Amino acid sequence: MLKISDVDKKSKAYNCWLNYENCSVGEYQDFCNYIKVKSTHPIINTAIEELKFGLNKLMKKEPLILNYSPKSSYIFVGTLEDLKNEKLDVQIKNEILKEDGFAVKIVKEGDTDVLAIIGQNEKGVLYGVFYLLRAICSGNSLNEIEIEDGPYNLLRIINHWDNLNGEIERGYAGQSIFFKDNKVVEDLSRVKDYARLLASIGINGVVLNNVNVHKYETELITDKFLPDVSRIADVFRLYGIKIYLSINFAAPVEIGDLPTADPLDERVKKWWKEIVENIYRYIPDFGGFLVKADSEFRPGPFTYGRNHAEGANMLAEALKPHGGLVFWRAFVYNCMVDWRDRTQDRAKAAYENFKPLDGQFMDNVVLQIKYGPMDFQIREPVSPLFGAMEKTNVALELQITQEYTGQQKDLCYLPTMWKEILDFDTYAKGKGSTVAKVVNGSLFGMKYGGIVGVSNIGDSKSWTGHPLAQANLYGFGRLAWNPLLSPKEIAEEWTKLTFGHDEQVINTIVSMLMASRDIYEKYTAPLGVGWMVNPGHHYGPNPEGYEYSHWGTYHYADYKGIGVDRTVATGTGYTAQYKEPIASMYENIETCPDELLLFFHHVPYTHKLKSGKTVIQHIYDTHFEGAEEAKGLKEKWLTLRGKIDEEIFEMVLERLEMQIKNAIEWRDVVNTYFYRKTGIRDVHNRKIYE
Amino acid sequence: MLKISDVDKKSKAYNCWLNYENCSVGEYQDFCNYIKVKSTHPIINTAIEELKFGLNKLMKKEPLILNYSPKSSYIFVGTLEDLKNEKLDVQIKNEILKEDGFAVKIVKEGDTDVLAIIGQNEKGVLYGVFYLLRAICSGNSLNEIEIEDGPYNLLRIINHWDNLNGEIERGYAGQSIFFKDNKVVEDLSRVKDYARLLASIGINGVVLNNVNVHKYETELITDKFLPDVSRIADVFRLYGIKIYLSINFAAPVEIGDLPTADPLDERVKKWWKEIVENIYRYIPDFGGFLVKADSEFRPGPFTYGRNHAEGANMLAEALKPHGGLVFWRAFVYNCMVDWRDRTQDRAKAAYENFKPLDGQFMDNVVLQIKYGPMDFQIREPVSPLFGAMEKTNVALELQITQEYTGQQKDLCYLPTMWKEILDFDTYAKGKGSTVAKVVNGSLFGMKYGGIVGVSNIGDSKSWTGHPLAQANLYGFGRLAWNPLLSPKEIAEEWTKLTFGHDEQVINTIVSMLMASRDIYEKYTAPLGVGWMVNPGHHYGPNPEGYEYSHWGTYHYADYKGIGVDRTVATGTGYTAQYKEPIASMYENIETCPDELLLFFHHVPYTHKLKSGKTVIQHIYDTHFEGAEEAKGLKEKWLTLRGKIDEEIFEMVLERLEMQIKNAIEWRDVVNTYFYRKTGIRDVHNRKIYE
Repeated sequence: MLKISDVDKKSKAYNCWLNYENCSVGEYQDFCNYIKVKSTHPIINTAIEELKFGLNKLMKKEPLILNYSPKSSYIFVGTLEDLKNEKLDVQIKNEILKEDGFAVKIVKEGDTDVLAIIGQNEKGVLYGVFYLLRAICSGNSLNEIEIEDGPYNLLRIINHWDNLNGEIERGYAGQSIFFKDNKVVEDLSRVKDYARLLASIGINGVVLNNVNVHKYETELITDKFLPDVSRIADVFRLYGIKIYLSINFAAPVEIGDLPTADPLDERVKKWWKEIVENIYRYIPDFGGFLVKADSEFRPGPFTYGRNHAEGANMLAEALKPHGGLVFWRAFVYNCMVDWRDRTQDRAKAAYENFKPLDGQFMDNVVLQIKYGPMDFQIREPVSPLFGAMEKTNVALELQITQEYTGQQKDLCYLPTMWKEILDFDTYAKGKGSTVAKVVNGSLFGMKYGGIVGVSNIGDSKSWTGHPLAQANLYGFGRLAWNPLLSPKEIAEEWTKLTFGHDEQVINTIVSMLMASRDIYEKYTAPLGVGWMVNPGHHYGPNPEGYEYSHWGTYHYADYKGIGVDRTVATGTGYTAQYKEPIASMYENIETCPDELLLFFHHVPYTHKLKSGKTVIQHIYDTHFEGAEEAKGLKEKWLTLRGKIDEEIFEMVLERLEMQIKNAIEWRDVVNTYFYRKTGIRDVHNRKIYE
Repeated sequence: MLKISDVDKKSKAYNCWLNYENCSVGEYQDFCNYIKVKSTHPIINTAIEELKFGLNKLMKKEPLILNYSPKSSYIFVGTLEDLKNEKLDVQIKNEILKEDGFAVKIVKEGDTDVLAIIGQNEKGVLYGVFYLLRAICSGNSLNEIEIEDGPYNLLRIINHWDNLNGEIERGYAGQSIFFKDNKVVEDLSRVKDYARLLASIGINGVVLNNVNVHKYETELITDKFLPDVSRIADVFRLYGIKIYLSINFAAPVEIGDLPTADPLDERVKKWWKEIVENIYRYIPDFGGFLVKADSEFRPGPFTYGRNHAEGANMLAEALKPHGGLVFWRAFVYNCMVDWRDRTQDRAKAAYENFKPLDGQFMDNVVLQIKYGPMDFQIREPVSPLFGAMEKTNVALELQITQEYTGQQKDLCYLPTMWKEILDFDTYAKGKGSTVAKVVNGSLFGMKYGGIVGVSNIGDSKSWTGHPLAQANLYGFGRLAWNPLLSPKEIAEEWTKLTFGHDEQVINTIVSMLMASRDIYEKYTAPLGVGWMVNPGHHYGPNPEGYEYSHWGTYHYADYKGIGVDRTVATGTGYTAQYKEPIASMYENIETCPDELLLFFHHVPYTHKLKSGKTVIQHIYDTHFEGAEEAKGLKEKWLTLRGKIDEEIFEMVLERLEMQIKNAIEWRDVVNTYFYRKTGIRDVHNRKIYE
């Protein structure tokens, strides 16, 4: 019987959207007394466990598990394959269901009504079970329950930036649940609880360790750690989740006693081949490697005069016989930029590095591309590399952890941003060539594709620090499964599952979530200019903190104007990396969207936006508004006192108060910064400090 | 026989000014064949060891150690007490020599010439030995050798900011030589070599651990660590150096199971009394505690509504029976300042906190005051607390480690700055009331006083990272011994001892050292405004990096002007903390020295300095000059190739190249920053990036 780890008892926040507490089985009751299952596949066992667990919570009694048909209605659980021996009147063909897909149908067995959960494979069964439980808990009526569903993306992956010492790079929710004191943790019950959460939203892969692979982590791929890594794999496997590891490209030198890590060197190839073979001995369904190479001081093929394709393919060759993949990050740029040289443009780097290599990557390499050309800012254009790689598997990398978006102190519901990205039309093959179609491989007919998110969880009792940041993890999984969902319906679904069906609760929380990204953007860096954060930790304002750095992160504000001229006509020429008509839209200051104006153009503070306001007045207005609206979030939340779990209420309240402070700090620093720069007063005469 | 640890063999940089390699015994030869000593006191043994070691290097043979007078000339070594039984014709009385003082005389014993080294105590003997060796190696002639000398300051102390894990806060020369992996290191041979260096310049106290006392370090005062701490004390003791520990004011709560650390609580008093008694069981000559309380998030008496005197006295009471001291740091300020509030002024904090408590501290408390009111910037006025505390022991805190002054990448010979500070006239008791007289206790007739320096050494093979930064440690010791020395004579002395007597070598290195502080100041923050560094690590320029922070570190630059108005007339009123005529000098913009203009006044960029230049032009000029002069340092150094040890040559060269890069970065960032702010061009049309 499924047991949730002890933390469960301590905090309702721990159970997230799988608490089954605010709903009941209702009209589904008739089906729920019996579950029929024949397969004993481990993942099917998991599915049954979950179904039993959920229904038990919903009915306050256990369903009976049978391997035969009862006399009355029941739930059938099985794969398409399992279905063959059944007498169920159900018409689903293999080709209808995508890999990992499922169908839920109400069918007849003789006179008996059967609710059939049928998976394309065992994972599909598990997803079908979670679908049913979600539908019941969302209050969806029985006559809407039928579905044939499959994932839009083959690869739905979480990247953990966890280090072996237990620290999480850019983690804002405690320490690693995998690692501690340079070891894999003994008790994996929390990992199991995590696997449940991930499987319930369709995630099928997890990279365990940080892309920045340090000394100890380099050895994760060796006998020293593999016995323990395989224990983690065993847990995830039951939930249909493969594990991956981030590797150090210099490992052959650092731990292999080789004099080189040159990807074309036979000794290096042999070394990796043996490493990979050994991994598969421990973990037969190992997913593959994630590689950050030649990026931010990480080693890579450049050291040996090789290119990224040569580097990636060498690893891909070793993995291929075992069915493993290489995720190769496109986050490659010169991080020793000279700020004096305005012709240099970090935004251009990924395209310049990878576009020329299109067609050279093996078919088990996936190029993992950050959503924007910079680094997870609150507002960036979509990376022009999407749509540019026509013969390369690509994946979209999103950041669920809120590095630049409030660090799980400030509320920032990210699916609103992600949806814009997925819907963005690259025009790669004419109108309608959305990012969603690029990354799932359908636009160019690629074998692999998907969406990757950098984890926002840690060992905090709510998993995500800010309980409402659970919505980001939930939303990530849901969008990776189906990018056609709207952020609002995801927010509603998550809110119902987490907090129940009180209309006021739903409306309030959904409205808070839906407004949150705009609010955060308003009080932080304006008009797409980005950065302006405190160096290092990246929380809070520091308008020139990164202005003279080597990171390529500039806004060039002087007493007259601000922004980065990335046009072809007078700037860095970045706009040319887009297909038409996008390139011209950004190139032309008249058609460039206001919210990205300073990303693409350097303009005087007196430049008029489409809104009719000057840039400087827009900055003042949005910053006053943003701070007010942050206060408004707290006011809204306060109306829910007594309507939701008290501990969660207080956890959120505490963070909303931090957010208000942060918003005020941003407002005042940014307004003062620009006032000191310009001497231009706010037309409304609000308080700007001198 | 004295052996220098193995590192010796690896690098000449390791031996610093005690290498005895570039000099010979010369006209001292006749005295040096025999050494007569009767005492077997451990410190006298050390003195003999050092004398033997040095003379052996200088003569290439060992002197003979006798306890009787030989027939020919010899060196006598002993205390005034030892002298009583000798027939030496020498007239020195107890009262002539200060504590730790010594005399070196050429005297007669019958017909025999005797070079007598006579100490007021055993430490004095050791200092006398080092004096003799230094004199020989400096090429001082025999007829100048006679001296009666004693330290100007009773307390000559090094503060280590070492953590138990081996890291050194603000350390730029490797890891701790005391601690590693949360333990005291096993092999203390390096500590012994360090003790030699310190004793040779008259240091008589060392605080082993960081003033920021973290979890593990809190336990240094317990049985868990005292056996190992006492091993370190044993090493230092032989060199006349007492050890001290930094303590955590909250220790009674954190490790003592008490519910409070209230200094007036009897349980707390008892707890500390027992802790202290236990320490003295292990270390009978333990020096005492250093305390950073109620400062930068460190706990302190404020938590319990007590003041600093109450906090310090409670500890002083526990230490008093054992002869121990409390060093209580005056570095207390609000580090959660609201940058919006221009009436707040961090510079005022130390005076405001401590002046009202004058007279309330016990006589074994020493108030340790940073030289300036802010934090070790390249240019600050002297803290007005010097001279203000008339009934309190005080010590001057200097920072040998170059936190804000180039981090031992950039050359910055600090004795030039320190000398200005020591010579600064506080007018506390009329003209001539220099800081030197305040801190040695003579001005107000205090019992204790002295100079404290934050260490610049680590386990790098040159001790200080930059080999020329050894001159700062050397100069610190020499000035603490005798503040009347000039920075130039110290530089010459150090250069001769370290590099020998080649005129070109001496002139070149001395000129580099003597120019270095001005050069560093020129290319960094202008006119006393301070900060403008990268937050956190404090290396390199970031003009607004600390501008909107909570640290109280602002320059208020806008498009019109810059500087902090600290006048009584229109500003924060800080100038009133000085005695007249200093107060008026700083208050009045006409008399305020240029180099501190922006520390005291907010002025337009077009304000004319006494030099006739505008502020903005001065900024441009000094920054172009500073960067050029940094290049000049390298040019000078290059002329020494082949004339000094090759490894040291390359180590310095590498750092001079880093300095040039840093200077160029500072030049361009600062110039661009002000150009962007003002649009005012350089009158000489030099390159300023837009």
